[in-house]
Amino acid sequence: MTQGNAIGERDLIRRISEILGGVENDDCAVIDAGDRYLVATTDMLHQKTDFPGIMNPWQMGWMAVAVNLSDIAAMGAEPAGVLIAAGLPPEADLYFIDELFSGFADCAAFYGTRILGGDTDSHQELTITGTALGFVEKELVLRRRGARVGDLLCTTGVLGGAGGGLWAWQQGVESEFITSLLEPEPRLKEGRALAKSRAVTAMMDNSDGLGLSLSDLSEVSRVGFVVQEEALPIAPGLVEMVGQEKALELVMSAGGDFELVFTVKPDGLEAARRACGLTVIGEVVEEGIWMEKGGERRRIEAKGYEHRIGK
Amino acid sequence: MTQGNAIGERDLIRRISEILGGVENDDCAVIDAGDRYLVATTDMLHQKTDFPGIMNPWQMGWMAVAVNLSDIAAMGAEPAGVLIAAGLPPEADLYFIDELFSGFADCAAFYGTRILGGDTDSHQELTITGTALGFVEKELVLRRRGARVGDLLCTTGVLGGAGGGLWAWQQGVESEFITSLLEPEPRLKEGRALAKSRAVTAMMDNSDGLGLSLSDLSEVSRVGFVVQEEALPIAPGLVEMVGQEKALELVMSAGGDFELVFTVKPDGLEAARRACGLTVIGEVVEEGIWMEKGGERRRIEAKGYEHRIGK
Repeated sequence: MTQGNAIGERDLIRRISEILGGVENDDCAVIDAGDRYLVATTDMLHQKTDFPGIMNPWQMGWMAVAVNLSDIAAMGAEPAGVLIAAGLPPEADLYFIDELFSGFADCAAFYGTRILGGDTDSHQELTITGTALGFVEKELVLRRRGARVGDLLCTTGVLGGAGGGLWAWQQGVESEFITSLLEPEPRLKEGRALAKSRAVTAMMDNSDGLGLSLSDLSEVSRVGFVVQEEALPIAPGLVEMVGQEKALELVMSAGGDFELVFTVKPDGLEAARRACGLTVIGEVVEEGIWMEKGGERRRIEAKGYEHRIGK
Repeated sequence: MTQGNAIGERDLIRRISEILGGVENDDCAVIDAGDRYLVATTDMLHQKTDFPGIMNPWQMGWMAVAVNLSDIAAMGAEPAGVLIAAGLPPEADLYFIDELFSGFADCAAFYGTRILGGDTDSHQELTITGTALGFVEKELVLRRRGARVGDLLCTTGVLGGAGGGLWAWQQGVESEFITSLLEPEPRLKEGRALAKSRAVTAMMDNSDGLGLSLSDLSEVSRVGFVVQEEALPIAPGLVEMVGQEKALELVMSAGGDFELVFTVKPDGLEAARRACGLTVIGEVVEEGIWMEKGGERRRIEAKGYEHRIGK
């Protein structure tokens, strides 16, 4: 993140989208591949911005693959492979390189896929661009658009753990949340099962925080959301560590969780529950993003982890 | 390129390939996609290493897409889209960003494809990772392996122009070669037509110089090459500008040309010629890489533009 008169990532994306003649706003690009869709996503990670100082090279490798596989998961797709372009700094020795590439390979293998190839080059700062590819049946693909008023808002897993990890590390506190931050586990099995359930109407991951996911889903689906504060599956132990208010802030605004946020047809909840563990955290409404507690609603702003770019 | 005890790019790739459990050594990764192959390639470019100081932002965008489309061409595939991850430096203003992204879009459109999406982020140094996707019929895919003794060695276009452009720019000489360097034109039409000709046995691009292409083809196909020095289609005007010896060096060792280097079955030359303009520059032999002139052969070393990485 740079400071100053920066352009917000999402504003810039809008501008760029115009230049490019329209880019669908999903976790992956969707390409016709005969009877299925090919889905593809790319993410560039930098040492300073994306890798907490505590991270070891194996974890950097794991992370670079995991963030991309999470986008594949969010489309309901099956991964078909990952490409890696790595710009290695002069200080990268063979130990570092071996660990980094083992991290790539181990994460891919853990999710039943593999590193297909890529590009290596030297760079001042460690920079890794992963590209993940996947396939999904055309009738099962899940997008950010599709949520309808009355649908249930759901999430997999628990929320705020990665944010708690970053907080703990910055405060010098030992905590298991640090592992959540450093070794994220994208929800490929869950994404695929949710797609097959045919109960889901829209989906994305929450990698920049729940708030920004809701903002994106809301924009693309042209709906609003009411979140039930007390329904949020805050990561166990987080409130104890940081307090209720900070925990909620981390859930909404911290990056690094890789859960799926999705909407389910009112009559589809049972099918979705058979697909995977989930928590209903709210519902789809006409407009706005609201937090409800004790019958009272307050409007919330989307404040996720947004990179700022350029001048 | 860093100095010192650097690991050569190709040595590093071998090491990495072991960690990753084997990576096919082609211009693209090849993935089963039903009745066709999906081919995919990724390339990371950096301001300092890859963009000559004379380059404008539109050309940087063009280049980032072109280098990846050249890999699609080398497989005989049809492009299906390009993903771009761009790390933009703090000094990138809106003019720069507009021009850069127009360069991406224009190059993709020129080759009948488009930018599917991607990722933008801030970075110290401008860093662009392009990923190109394509499809090719399984029976038509062209790889680096497949060259057989007695096949004819061929190239599209002319050679050394980009190297001449870099030389001219470095010497402060005005020259049309500078455009060859800054606005490369990958051979997609030619690659596709050559694949359909069914006359080609192995193919790759020469983006790191003809010498390194021959070295790579030789290693993967387990054959050697004899190049007829006087048959080389040296870019017109290059010898006049830099002299015969330097011209030959640029042909063999300079990066930036994006021609296709390929081998053709002895009885396939006519079919290959119907596919596209080509020059026969030699033939496939048992072993070694040789330059022949006036009936005399000398063994040549592969000395292309090789990035050096890490410590």
